[in-house]
Amino acid sequence: MSLFYELAVAQPVKMLKNLHGMLDKAVAHADQRRFDAEVLLSCRLAPDQYPFVRQIQIVCDGAKFGAARLTGREAPVHEDNEKSIAELRSRIDKVIDYLKSYKPEDFEGVAQKRIVLPWSQGKALSGQDFLVQASIPNLYFHITTAYAILRHNGVDVGKMDYLGSMPFQD
Amino acid sequence: MSLFYELAVAQPVKMLKNLHGMLDKAVAHADQRRFDAEVLLSCRLAPDQYPFVRQIQIVCDGAKFGAARLTGREAPVHEDNEKSIAELRSRIDKVIDYLKSYKPEDFEGVAQKRIVLPWSQGKALSGQDFLVQASIPNLYFHITTAYAILRHNGVDVGKMDYLGSMPFQD
Repeated sequence: MSLFYELAVAQPVKMLKNLHGMLDKAVAHADQRRFDAEVLLSCRLAPDQYPFVRQIQIVCDGAKFGAARLTGREAPVHEDNEKSIAELRSRIDKVIDYLKSYKPEDFEGVAQKRIVLPWSQGKALSGQDFLVQASIPNLYFHITTAYAILRHNGVDVGKMDYLGSMPFQD
Repeated sequence: MSLFYELAVAQPVKMLKNLHGMLDKAVAHADQRRFDAEVLLSCRLAPDQYPFVRQIQIVCDGAKFGAARLTGREAPVHEDNEKSIAELRSRIDKVIDYLKSYKPEDFEGVAQKRIVLPWSQGKALSGQDFLVQASIPNLYFHITTAYAILRHNGVDVGKMDYLGSMPFQD
């Protein structure tokens, strides 16, 4: 079903690319204000919240595991050891490349599939429930939180940086 | 197509209900710290960001217009004049009730439909692109931003308040 592919692959790829644009603005802001852009990696909105670097790592894992769990594939392992914006960009690109290995036909029949999560104690979600109620909202949660951390720290990001371009037709 | 209904109606209804849970925690936090909970309505993460009250209004409008635009129905008008948490709850409930007027069959054939947006200067998105690339990410953006504003102000909200319960099966 092509809608599953759009939701689990094409749109996450677009959002990951949009993250690059937000990182561009983060670096530009740091340059202009003359602080080290890597400082942003440890910023957070509350002391018991994951910092920016971890938000991006979770976005990457969410996108990767979303497609992998739906299709029953093994996802590549990434170590969560990024210490710079350049390393975060590399992590994002690895996930984009991984997602590009999927084809729409890989998602045929996944709506009814049983998806057991590492923390679900053997219980399962249907593929559709996993995608709609867990994977998609979780992905946008961490992208928006990363965006909010930048926004709170003065980076000039706006809604269109988050949404990206729209395929308008005449 | 039932997946369209899940994405445009059932899941937004669930998220709107989850917002009630977050408002419960916001009020409990205000009571415990002895401040007026309505103060939270004007909180924001940056001086040029919409405050909490507006984030919730946009969530409500996003959910309402998402279903209405896909199906070509008129959406009810809501005035954006909420001044209290009780009024925000009422707004949320109106949108839940409105979404409950939809049936899965209302979304048959909407994937290929031309959706012209008020700001798209006559250009159109397909129904699928509108849902996947605009409506869904926009909805989660404003829910997560509302959540982040509460989180930043000390309200004890966590990821499960955002995601809500999952329909796990044995």
